[in-house]
Amino acid sequence: MSVRLKDVAVRAGVSIRTVSNVVNDYPYVRAETRARVQAAIDELGYRPNLTARQLRRGRTGMIALAVPDLTIPYFGELAGHVLMAAERHGLTLLIEQTAGSREREVMLAQGPRAKSIDGLLLSPLAADVEDLPTGSESVPLVLLGERIYDPRFDHVAIDNVAAAEAATRHLLESGRRRVAAVGVASSARSTMADLRLRGYRQAMDGYGLTVDERLVVRTTWFRRPDGYVATKQLLESGEPPEAMFCFNDLIAHGALRALSEAGLRCPEDVAVIGIDDIEENRYTVPSLTSIAPDKSKIAHHAVELLVRRIGGERPDGVDYTPGFSLSVRESAP
Amino acid sequence: MSVRLKDVAVRAGVSIRTVSNVVNDYPYVRAETRARVQAAIDELGYRPNLTARQLRRGRTGMIALAVPDLTIPYFGELAGHVLMAAERHGLTLLIEQTAGSREREVMLAQGPRAKSIDGLLLSPLAADVEDLPTGSESVPLVLLGERIYDPRFDHVAIDNVAAAEAATRHLLESGRRRVAAVGVASSARSTMADLRLRGYRQAMDGYGLTVDERLVVRTTWFRRPDGYVATKQLLESGEPPEAMFCFNDLIAHGALRALSEAGLRCPEDVAVIGIDDIEENRYTVPSLTSIAPDKSKIAHHAVELLVRRIGGERPDGVDYTPGFSLSVRESAP
Repeated sequence: MSVRLKDVAVRAGVSIRTVSNVVNDYPYVRAETRARVQAAIDELGYRPNLTARQLRRGRTGMIALAVPDLTIPYFGELAGHVLMAAERHGLTLLIEQTAGSREREVMLAQGPRAKSIDGLLLSPLAADVEDLPTGSESVPLVLLGERIYDPRFDHVAIDNVAAAEAATRHLLESGRRRVAAVGVASSARSTMADLRLRGYRQAMDGYGLTVDERLVVRTTWFRRPDGYVATKQLLESGEPPEAMFCFNDLIAHGALRALSEAGLRCPEDVAVIGIDDIEENRYTVPSLTSIAPDKSKIAHHAVELLVRRIGGERPDGVDYTPGFSLSVRESAP
Repeated sequence: MSVRLKDVAVRAGVSIRTVSNVVNDYPYVRAETRARVQAAIDELGYRPNLTARQLRRGRTGMIALAVPDLTIPYFGELAGHVLMAAERHGLTLLIEQTAGSREREVMLAQGPRAKSIDGLLLSPLAADVEDLPTGSESVPLVLLGERIYDPRFDHVAIDNVAAAEAATRHLLESGRRRVAAVGVASSARSTMADLRLRGYRQAMDGYGLTVDERLVVRTTWFRRPDGYVATKQLLESGEPPEAMFCFNDLIAHGALRALSEAGLRCPEDVAVIGIDDIEENRYTVPSLTSIAPDKSKIAHHAVELLVRRIGGERPDGVDYTPGFSLSVRESAP
C-alpha cells in the first residue's frame, strides 16, 4: 500500500492540511514545521498523487478573474499580474467585467459560465455571501477585497485600515493638520471605503486631533469625476484643507485637477495622497504620492489559493494579507 | 412550400444578401432599397426562419473581444461599449488580453477556446492574415483596427490617415509651424502608426511645409513612458517644437509631464494633441485636446457584423469606417 498524506501527517505530528500545504509549496507554513514535514516525507518515501490531482484539477485549463470595472486602472494592472500568475500554472485566464452588477457576479459564480471554468477569482461589489455557492458541485472560488467576509472562503485583501492610517500619517508627519478624507462611500455597499475611513480616523486620533467632519467628503464612486466634484464642494464649503487623503488614485487625480482650476498649488497649498499606485501617478503634474499595494503578490497568492481549491481541497478559508509600501512623489513629499 | 429568401430577392430585384440585410435590420441598405424589399416581403408573406437562425447562432451565447492590452485606456473604454452592445443582443462578452502575442491571438481564433464562443472580435497586433481561420468550421471573426487587411474578413477601423491629418491641421491652424510627430513605430508591425504618420505628412504638405525629420520621433510602444522618453529626446536634440502631434493620448500624457519638467508651458510654448479621447484627458493639467473616434459606433457595428457572421452568412468582408470628432481642450486651443 502506498504512503498516504495521512501517514505523513501522523509521522510529523501535524494536520493533513499542513502536509498538503508543504507538498504544494504554499507559503503559509513556518520554516520549522516545513522542515519536519519534509523529513517525514523523505523517511516514508511519500510521493504526491499528481495524476489524481491533475484529473480533478484540469477540467478546462481556464480560470476567470471578475472585477467591477476594467477602466479603473487598479483592476487593469491587477489583471495583468493575474495573467502572468495564471500562465505560470499553465492556466488560461478569462477576464470578466461585472460592472458591479449583482446579477453578473452571481451568474459568473453559479451560472452556466461557471461550468466552463476551473475556478473563479471574484472581486465582489454587489453580491452578498448568500449569493455565493458553497456546495461540492460549485465552482472553486477565491474572493478579492473585503466586500464579503466569510470563513468558508479564501480571501486576498490588503489591510485597508493600516493602509489608510499610513497614508494619513504621512500627511500629518509633514506638519499639516487640516487633513480631508475624500471617498467616503455614499452607499452602504463599500466595505473598503468604511475601512479606509477608520484608518484615517485612527491616524488623526494618534496625533490627538479631532476630525472636522466638514473635511470628510462622500463620493458615489471611485473615479476621476468623483474626486473632481468632491474637491470643488470641499473648496466651496469654506477654508481649504492643508492636505487631502483620497481613497484611491483616480479620486486624487480628480482632486489635482480641481485644485489647479481653483488656483491652489499642490503640494505648497494642499498636499494630496492616494492609494493604488497606478502607473499614471508618475506622469501627472504634480506626480502623485500613493500607497502601493503589492499587486504582484496579490495576484500570485490569489492564483495559488485558487489552484489549491481546484486541486480538490475544501479546507476552511485562508486569509492572505499582502503588504503595501509608500511611493513618495511631488504631491506629498 | 414556404416563401424563401430567394423568392423575395427575385420579386424585389435585389441580391439574396440585400434581403438578408433588410431582414436582419442591418444599416448597410439604402432607404429606397429597404422599402422595395419590405414591400416584396409583405406581398409574399415571407417570415424569416428564426428557429433555424437561432440554432445556427445560439451555440453558447458568448462572444469574445480580444485586445492587446486592457491597461491602455482606449481598449478598456472600448470594452465597456462592446459589453453594452453585446448585451443588447443578449450575448455574454468575454474580454481577452493578448499582450500582443501572436500565439495568444492565434489560439483565440483557432484553438480550443474558439469552440466555446460563438464569435470573436479581434484587434490583432502580431498575427498575420495566414494565421487566421477562413474555413466553414472556423469561428466567426470580425477584425478591429487595420493591422490585417483582407477582403474575406469584416473590418471596423477609423480612417487613421484622415484622423492624423485633422489633428495636425488643428495645430497648424493656430499658426504653429514646427510640429513634431511622436509615436512613429520602431518596428514594422504597426500599420496604425504608419497611417498616422502619413496623415501628418499630408497635413504638412497641405500647408506647403517641409517636414523637419528631426521632429519625427519613434517610440517602441504607445504608453506614457514612451511619450515621456521621446519628448525628453526631442527637447535634448535641439530647439523645442511649437506643437506636438502624439499618436495616442497616453504618449501625449507622457509628453505633458516631460514638458512640465523642462519648464515649458503647454500650450503657450508647446501645444499638444493626442488621439483616442480617453476620460483622463479632462483631468490632466492642462487638459488634453484629442481626436475622438466614435467608440460607441465602433462597438455597435463590430457586434452587428459579428452577429451577422454568427447567423451563418459567409459574404465577402464588410468594411465599416466609424467617424471621429475633435475635442478641443487646454493643451491645444
